[in-house]
Amino acid sequence: MRDLSPLLAPRSVAVVGASSNLASLAGKPVRFLRDSGADVAVYPVNPSREEIGGYRAYPDPSALPEAPDVGLVVVPAQAVVSAVEALARRGARSAIVVSSGFAEVGGETGAAAQRRLREIARDHGMLLLGPNTLGIHDYVRGLPLSFVWYGRRAVSPDGGVAVISQSGSGMTSLCDRLLADGLPLGVGVATGNEADVTLVDVLEHLAEDERVKVVATLFEEVRDGPRFLAVCRRLRELGKPLVAMKVGRTSSGSAVVRSHTGALAGSYPALRALLRQHGVLEVADLDEIAPAVAAALPGRLPPADAIAVVTNSGGAAGIAADRADELGVPLARLGADTQRRIVENLPSFAQGQIVSNPVDVTAQSMQRPNALVDIAEAMVDDPAVGGVIVAVPSGGGPDGVRWTGRLVDLARSSAKPVIAVILSGPESDRLRGELRAGGVPVMSSPARAVEALQMLRRFARTPLPDATGMAPREGEPVPLPSRHTENSALRWLAEYGVPVCEQRLATTAAEAVIAAETIGYPVAVKISSPDITHKTDAGGVVLGCARADAVARAAEQVMAAAAAAVPGALIEGVTVSRMVTPVLELISGIHRDPTFGPVILLGLGGVWAEVLGDVTMRGLPFDPDEVERMVDDLQGASLLRGARGHKPVSKEALAQLVGALVRIAGDHGSRLRGIDLNPVAVTADGELVVLDAAVYTDSD
Amino acid sequence: MRDLSPLLAPRSVAVVGASSNLASLAGKPVRFLRDSGADVAVYPVNPSREEIGGYRAYPDPSALPEAPDVGLVVVPAQAVVSAVEALARRGARSAIVVSSGFAEVGGETGAAAQRRLREIARDHGMLLLGPNTLGIHDYVRGLPLSFVWYGRRAVSPDGGVAVISQSGSGMTSLCDRLLADGLPLGVGVATGNEADVTLVDVLEHLAEDERVKVVATLFEEVRDGPRFLAVCRRLRELGKPLVAMKVGRTSSGSAVVRSHTGALAGSYPALRALLRQHGVLEVADLDEIAPAVAAALPGRLPPADAIAVVTNSGGAAGIAADRADELGVPLARLGADTQRRIVENLPSFAQGQIVSNPVDVTAQSMQRPNALVDIAEAMVDDPAVGGVIVAVPSGGGPDGVRWTGRLVDLARSSAKPVIAVILSGPESDRLRGELRAGGVPVMSSPARAVEALQMLRRFARTPLPDATGMAPREGEPVPLPSRHTENSALRWLAEYGVPVCEQRLATTAAEAVIAAETIGYPVAVKISSPDITHKTDAGGVVLGCARADAVARAAEQVMAAAAAAVPGALIEGVTVSRMVTPVLELISGIHRDPTFGPVILLGLGGVWAEVLGDVTMRGLPFDPDEVERMVDDLQGASLLRGARGHKPVSKEALAQLVGALVRIAGDHGSRLRGIDLNPVAVTADGELVVLDAAVYTDSD
Repeated sequence: MRDLSPLLAPRSVAVVGASSNLASLAGKPVRFLRDSGADVAVYPVNPSREEIGGYRAYPDPSALPEAPDVGLVVVPAQAVVSAVEALARRGARSAIVVSSGFAEVGGETGAAAQRRLREIARDHGMLLLGPNTLGIHDYVRGLPLSFVWYGRRAVSPDGGVAVISQSGSGMTSLCDRLLADGLPLGVGVATGNEADVTLVDVLEHLAEDERVKVVATLFEEVRDGPRFLAVCRRLRELGKPLVAMKVGRTSSGSAVVRSHTGALAGSYPALRALLRQHGVLEVADLDEIAPAVAAALPGRLPPADAIAVVTNSGGAAGIAADRADELGVPLARLGADTQRRIVENLPSFAQGQIVSNPVDVTAQSMQRPNALVDIAEAMVDDPAVGGVIVAVPSGGGPDGVRWTGRLVDLARSSAKPVIAVILSGPESDRLRGELRAGGVPVMSSPARAVEALQMLRRFARTPLPDATGMAPREGEPVPLPSRHTENSALRWLAEYGVPVCEQRLATTAAEAVIAAETIGYPVAVKISSPDITHKTDAGGVVLGCARADAVARAAEQVMAAAAAAVPGALIEGVTVSRMVTPVLELISGIHRDPTFGPVILLGLGGVWAEVLGDVTMRGLPFDPDEVERMVDDLQGASLLRGARGHKPVSKEALAQLVGALVRIAGDHGSRLRGIDLNPVAVTADGELVVLDAAVYTDSD
Repeated sequence: MRDLSPLLAPRSVAVVGASSNLASLAGKPVRFLRDSGADVAVYPVNPSREEIGGYRAYPDPSALPEAPDVGLVVVPAQAVVSAVEALARRGARSAIVVSSGFAEVGGETGAAAQRRLREIARDHGMLLLGPNTLGIHDYVRGLPLSFVWYGRRAVSPDGGVAVISQSGSGMTSLCDRLLADGLPLGVGVATGNEADVTLVDVLEHLAEDERVKVVATLFEEVRDGPRFLAVCRRLRELGKPLVAMKVGRTSSGSAVVRSHTGALAGSYPALRALLRQHGVLEVADLDEIAPAVAAALPGRLPPADAIAVVTNSGGAAGIAADRADELGVPLARLGADTQRRIVENLPSFAQGQIVSNPVDVTAQSMQRPNALVDIAEAMVDDPAVGGVIVAVPSGGGPDGVRWTGRLVDLARSSAKPVIAVILSGPESDRLRGELRAGGVPVMSSPARAVEALQMLRRFARTPLPDATGMAPREGEPVPLPSRHTENSALRWLAEYGVPVCEQRLATTAAEAVIAAETIGYPVAVKISSPDITHKTDAGGVVLGCARADAVARAAEQVMAAAAAAVPGALIEGVTVSRMVTPVLELISGIHRDPTFGPVILLGLGGVWAEVLGDVTMRGLPFDPDEVERMVDDLQGASLLRGARGHKPVSKEALAQLVGALVRIAGDHGSRLRGIDLNPVAVTADGELVVLDAAVYTDSD
């Protein structure tokens, strides 16, 4: 882990290229530092001024009275390299290059300059943030290292929430939204083009900062996938959720990102699956970030899977139930004691009703909002309930009734997440403010609250790092040949325990019969020739041979037909294999993602893969329970669970297949370009048989 | 259409059951009416008071000095019927029953009382809103007919936006959100249990109110489907978008709604498809309603399909592009002249770049926000562009620069929708306020803006009612038999032009051969018996008979096997049908929805239908172009368009199939319970053949 303290906790800042026009981009950083009153030494660097913004100015970094913790570089692009060199020679511990005009504009000049910045930083052991970065906002110290600053401060001296974004406007947008919602933002960091310090470096640093409870990030590219995933696991271990939004999920979006950052895009489906695997709270839009952060901040994780909702709005009850159903979040079946406590709080005309969940106390309860809190308390006490939503139209309640204090107390004393929803009304702002000041997450819609609990459930269920990793394999790795034929690929896979279709090579009809007798009827007979790719077109396939004479005849026929169809082809003989009639076809394998390295694939085969892309992925390390969650990810999950009258796919068989791929990826990830197992047949008794396989290595 | 003026534009209000405790639920309506200062006569009705809230009180409706336009009934449930009767006898033109304790609580007592209210209203020609309604908020007159009122007024004397909700908290939530976003809300109506006046009645009335430009509704149940769809068409014709959110989309959600309203739920997939067919802007969450209303309010519809985006945030550009890709909204390819005008406004280092869309003018332009407006203007002028998004981090720009006025002018003069996105910053509130006051829709995220344009595109492309309706069929309706066998169903469908598989009944092997010779080889031979359902199990099916002798043998074999398998079965003979080998299977048919009547279904067959439910629906009247949009709706649309190397499904064949079903639904919708065409085979040359069909009528 890189120590980013010089950047994130500086005692001195040199502003290189500071302008005496304090309204200009190059003048604002000094003005903001001055106006902030933050406890930091400020050294403007400008060859033609004695003083800027009330600070003594220095002609050159070499003239600085001390080696600064941070050199904030605001000179034009073409002057950046020499400014950074001068800072490095002066012993600056870090530099922030806000200037743009590097890799992000395209072309070799900018990219080369950016590489040079990286070299200088590495050569001098100096940290370099940027170029093309908006810089750093420290809201706890009130310290702006940026040309944008609105003078806002953290609502709590510890901060609590940290923001990281590659895009500068992304950073300010996130920070603004969190501050607007009254959340205790501590620091915002924009990493820009990441010539040196990356998103992952900052994440690693913030993860270990005990003041940080939740991190929010808007990111475009991950540059070091395995380290990124490692810090995600570390955050899970520390119980600090990472709320993340990816920009450039689609081809249009990633085209924008590439033109903007010059980075190479990995695959979003792989990223998405890996984020989920590692417990990251991924959101799809800016508007979803602050609610997710708010829900994560109290540090309460659902101890049970189901949720409970209490409201005095029938509409809100329906909306919550809809969203729970849509997301697959179960509504808790409330216990008898809970029901009794709820009925006590219902209006008289509803006391005879069966208590369902969501509980709607109806508009009658406007006269007694404390009933909602009493019911929420009963729900929190119910062991079947993992989290509670209290949805209130704020206009209710006799003027002046203070039920928010009671809800704050409940949320604080509860080990379970409690989320408030304020639907409307003139008192909304006051109620929201009171609840937020008390640490209660407040959402604007019941649907958002359900989404937040769903994210917390996912985070809670993500296995801790020490639980991950398959059991180590007994023997040594099976050496990976540099080149595979279909037969050798299947044999090699079989040594790892991949359930391949049993098959034997036979050079004569008589050998084919012996092979068939060994394998058991019926069998398929296929030509074996390195020169024939399309076996069926060459007359090289006979299926369903049920007896010895049929096998012998098929072997002769296939060899003759293939030789005739592809003159000069080397005919090794025929492959005799067990006939498998799939009731369903899967695909599986290993794919090397440019960002994350080897990922394990599992999906529906055939038309499902082609038309729906119904495939999910996981990376290493891999928790054995993850196999079940891979199935959950698939649109066609019910097919694997025995839809259409078939037996479900054996869990053991799936675990064996995926486990073998995990071991292969672990043993050979660096040399392996990929493995395609397609199709993987599901048999009528729920077993798996790989019918065809290809293994690709770097030497292919 | 019912004239709701007495309810929506009353000159006099009697509050029946008014309490002299003006803080109580029964006292608030009088207090609100008094405090509003609205120009309306107020008559509290209370047998034991002379005066309430400064108004003279009357002991009984019969004592009122005039027949009131509205009687607002706030007595307890058990006293409601007699209060409403008294109002009706006094000649009240309408009643609003806010009291709860009717059908929504379950049980026969409440339901019976609710039916009685309806009878009284109908008998006296009185309108009745409720029971269990929050009432009506007239924001233009500042007139509250409700026990909830926050004293807010419309920002425009004409209103412009109307809100209808069945749920009271839904109504206040919607109204609050619209008011909070500065939108010109005119009226909010809660319809409650809808004993008499329904959502559709109110919609019909508001559609014809020329002050109303957009209607927003949060609804739980539609009680009169065909009238609801008719008013949706009327709104489309008038160019007034309906923004709608359905509560109770899922089984959990609709269970809540049923327990809450006592209504019978139709199918949400049908509703969803019909809303889309009729141009309704459906949203999924409360948070999406105000943005959709804001986007619809200026009345600009996209004249072209593609959109353009300009921003000075790379992150915002990426987010917009992602959402456009995800929703299938094309990003416009900008014309040469547009590109030239854009380049003029780019910072110097970017002038060599090719202009893509979204256009990112980079943070450099913070110094010149007018560049964004100049570029937006060029985009508006480009004929390839249907709508423009301008996404601005508000913190940018030298202090005091007023670019918002220019954007307001552009949006006003443009015939295309122009949407602003304010990402963040301390000036956000001011900028949002200025833009909104100028009628520019402002969103909080680029994704929302893209969603809004997508909704406007859909509305714009919805055919106008005068364009709908298939060409009238030449002949008379084909009479619908009360009972069908498979054979007779296929014959009947064929008379309507449904492309059924050609087949003939043969009673002997010789007749079967004649049938096969007529149809052409190969054929399938199947047992024909009303007593044998599972033909294959009974040995009653032989496929692929390619010659006369095979047909004769098959006919004899099938009749013998079936007779043996099901002793005593009536054997009519065999059905000889053309052999069709599907490359893909579809399902189609007619389903009678409890709310909307006959709907036409089209979907993928087999596992797609069972596992994914990949089926779409449309109602009558039916625009012929809708067939193409039905295909668009399907997840497996690419399969119908020729994925996997197959020929696309013939558009003419699809139009013929669906057109025939439309005519059948028109001719027999009232008696027809449903038609299942399953499977509908797609042949290798893209033609459709219905292989099996069932027709269900009410007399079945």
